[in-house]
Amino acid sequence: MDEIASNEIVTDDDVISILIATDNHLGYMERDPLRSNDSFQTFEEILLYAKKYNVDMMLLGGDLFHDNKPSRKTLYNTIALLRQHCMGDKPCQLEFLSDQKRNFTSFFPIVNYEDPNLNISLPIFSIHGNHDDPSGDGNLCALDVLSASGLINYFGKSNQVDNIEISPILLKKGKTRLALYGLGNIRDERLYRTFLRKNVKMLRPKQNMDEWFNLFVLHQNRVSHNPKNYIPETFVNDFIDLILWGHEHECLIDLSKNEVKNFYITQPGSSVATSLCEGESKTKHIGILRIKQKQFEIEKIKLKSVRPFLMADICLQENLSNERDPTVITNYLIQKVEELEKKAIDDWKENNPDLSSKMNCPRPLIRLRVEYSGGYPTFNPHKFGQRFVNRIANPNDILHFYRKKAVAKLNSSTENDVSFLPEKLENTKIETLIDEFLQIKNLEILNEKELGSAVKTYIEKDEKDAIKE
Amino acid sequence: MDEIASNEIVTDDDVISILIATDNHLGYMERDPLRSNDSFQTFEEILLYAKKYNVDMMLLGGDLFHDNKPSRKTLYNTIALLRQHCMGDKPCQLEFLSDQKRNFTSFFPIVNYEDPNLNISLPIFSIHGNHDDPSGDGNLCALDVLSASGLINYFGKSNQVDNIEISPILLKKGKTRLALYGLGNIRDERLYRTFLRKNVKMLRPKQNMDEWFNLFVLHQNRVSHNPKNYIPETFVNDFIDLILWGHEHECLIDLSKNEVKNFYITQPGSSVATSLCEGESKTKHIGILRIKQKQFEIEKIKLKSVRPFLMADICLQENLSNERDPTVITNYLIQKVEELEKKAIDDWKENNPDLSSKMNCPRPLIRLRVEYSGGYPTFNPHKFGQRFVNRIANPNDILHFYRKKAVAKLNSSTENDVSFLPEKLENTKIETLIDEFLQIKNLEILNEKELGSAVKTYIEKDEKDAIKE
Repeated sequence: MDEIASNEIVTDDDVISILIATDNHLGYMERDPLRSNDSFQTFEEILLYAKKYNVDMMLLGGDLFHDNKPSRKTLYNTIALLRQHCMGDKPCQLEFLSDQKRNFTSFFPIVNYEDPNLNISLPIFSIHGNHDDPSGDGNLCALDVLSASGLINYFGKSNQVDNIEISPILLKKGKTRLALYGLGNIRDERLYRTFLRKNVKMLRPKQNMDEWFNLFVLHQNRVSHNPKNYIPETFVNDFIDLILWGHEHECLIDLSKNEVKNFYITQPGSSVATSLCEGESKTKHIGILRIKQKQFEIEKIKLKSVRPFLMADICLQENLSNERDPTVITNYLIQKVEELEKKAIDDWKENNPDLSSKMNCPRPLIRLRVEYSGGYPTFNPHKFGQRFVNRIANPNDILHFYRKKAVAKLNSSTENDVSFLPEKLENTKIETLIDEFLQIKNLEILNEKELGSAVKTYIEKDEKDAIKE
Repeated sequence: MDEIASNEIVTDDDVISILIATDNHLGYMERDPLRSNDSFQTFEEILLYAKKYNVDMMLLGGDLFHDNKPSRKTLYNTIALLRQHCMGDKPCQLEFLSDQKRNFTSFFPIVNYEDPNLNISLPIFSIHGNHDDPSGDGNLCALDVLSASGLINYFGKSNQVDNIEISPILLKKGKTRLALYGLGNIRDERLYRTFLRKNVKMLRPKQNMDEWFNLFVLHQNRVSHNPKNYIPETFVNDFIDLILWGHEHECLIDLSKNEVKNFYITQPGSSVATSLCEGESKTKHIGILRIKQKQFEIEKIKLKSVRPFLMADICLQENLSNERDPTVITNYLIQKVEELEKKAIDDWKENNPDLSSKMNCPRPLIRLRVEYSGGYPTFNPHKFGQRFVNRIANPNDILHFYRKKAVAKLNSSTENDVSFLPEKLENTKIETLIDEFLQIKNLEILNEKELGSAVKTYIEKDEKDAIKE
């Protein structure tokens, strides 16, 4: 397989073009009055690029939905967007060669563009992520619902986690043959073990085996959080030409080569920031992957509708030396936030000359990580943010105070018993969740009548937020 | 409008034929290992009749879904059934004459069979019921989701409850013109008041006003539970020719004439029994409504897939005189249950000669209402039912013990303050709901680890039954 420099492949009848994107997290922040539509707006931008670039198909790397059980509104909006942008008179030129019953586990094991009752112009193929993975009665996920309606081709659902056999979707256009391998998210530790035991088998077509371009899409940790909590790139079979890596939110869509395995990896990253960390503050892109026989390239496209997000690290000791007056510190931090706000707006205007004459820059997300080691006072980030309510999209969590980690101590404890660490972390997480859960059930602010009404709504309508509200 | 005797209308190019059904309660008892599929099985039987009788459309009277937020599995199964049975090459011969933007509030205000991207063979029109009514963010209901995917034409959603204007769907086939008025469920007390204040307006087409056949579908109490908790038939405009009454589960599909208003009413009743009461034990039917100009008829069709259900009333005092030995009483009730079981099976075999050679009769539902006034002992119905676990579909609630009501006392209190009664009843209901709610949260049987895991599932997956389980 050969990667070639961008824009060298001229679209012709032998080129398969695929819009690649991942982690759209539809429904993220859906109850936030300002940000509720962010995930949908960018997903629609992506769907419009698919049309503009006249791609043969779209490939998603998981976490199309933020919630495992998307709200009715999110499901409704998603179905509406897909029906609006994926249907129409453009015929799909991809020949489907593999056994569809093996590729699709849905009630209708047929690729949507071959269903004579549906007029599909843009076939979307997707695996599930960790947010929208199958669960509960029937082991179904939200993508199964979209798949039943014919709007998505959901693949990569494995019946077993200890013994995985991936049968590729085989597509052909002109002289180009694409073998598409998909594996929806499995808990990293579990999949790590299955890989180690050589129990992840990738089937290959017998005919013209070496002529296929082999594309693998998965949704796992790529970065090592602890020794077994990720999937090392080298676990993947070396006959693979390109990996589309979902789950990691930082946009690293430019091809990176794994020199050991001699294959390439593209990590499109999320299309909406779901945490205020550095990776999410990078410019977000999707890609147009063009494959011509064994050659391929990715043209990256900057997403314009993404809400601006800037972050900065501030060390109080370095910047304020011995100044410990809360007012001075507050004013200093206000100034820093305003600098970032100005930069976010200026950057947006520069990057969107066409838009900036028509609309204001969307309120940016700003995060200041404030290191306060050395006896500096902290204050309530929520209260600090009130002055930015009409200017910043996340007034309640602009500031994140932290102290320098006791590095030496952590290292020694890690050395003592590495394998014990994740379990401890998990316990902590569950306790936090229980706390949150019990807080939701905290009834002190409700009078009896309100409680009655809330409980009624809770039970009758399955409104998980009824009591919270 | 003239009703004519059944089967007199010969299908021709002027006849609009409509399959009428209601209250399918998809997803009812979905966690019961035996009965989980009952609602879907009968709904599929209904869809097959639509094909067999070659109808122009299907009209549903609400409560297609049992739960306001149907489970993923129920949504998946429903979408799959609709895609399977409503799509195909049969063109719909109904001309759509009214303004679709006024009839449909969905994202796609277009009747599904006119969407060039969908190949619809059976258009379904439905209003919502009280189970699947709009709620929450965006005031959406489960039918909106089906409507977004193009599988259902959802109508009859009113923006206001105090001022209602119903703009009919106008359909034409040959010489027959149908004005279809729909009103999804509104709380009875509210709608009662709106009717009283003359604030329910039904618009009529100006052209050929008297040539339209006017069909009204609603989903409300038809039976008076208390003075304002139902909609009297006489509230309905007398230009209406026929009312399809949803919500009431007893099958009274045969036309009943309201002599005051001179219109007819058909009440198809539910297609699955959701309570073990007398109305639900009647034979269930759907109908084929044929309209030819102002003439119409309903051909009723017995549903074969409905689980047999027999009930009987037993008064211990009348049957056992002075016998109070629990063993004798138990044996007497066992004998009664077995008599009903035998009758249910015999009836089923007689009614299904074609099926009975291929399969056994489905396990019947049996309900014995046992009046035990006079100092008779009662016992645990759950324990009593254990001997029927493999024979009766509802072993846990076969017996329903009750005592004769103190009629005189109730009457006097009713006379004192009629209007106060519903409020009292509502309070009781909420307390019961709170009790149920708190019981669900009863954690005594879970150890800490199980609790952690359950809470995690509860929060991450929105699995309302996680803790219960």
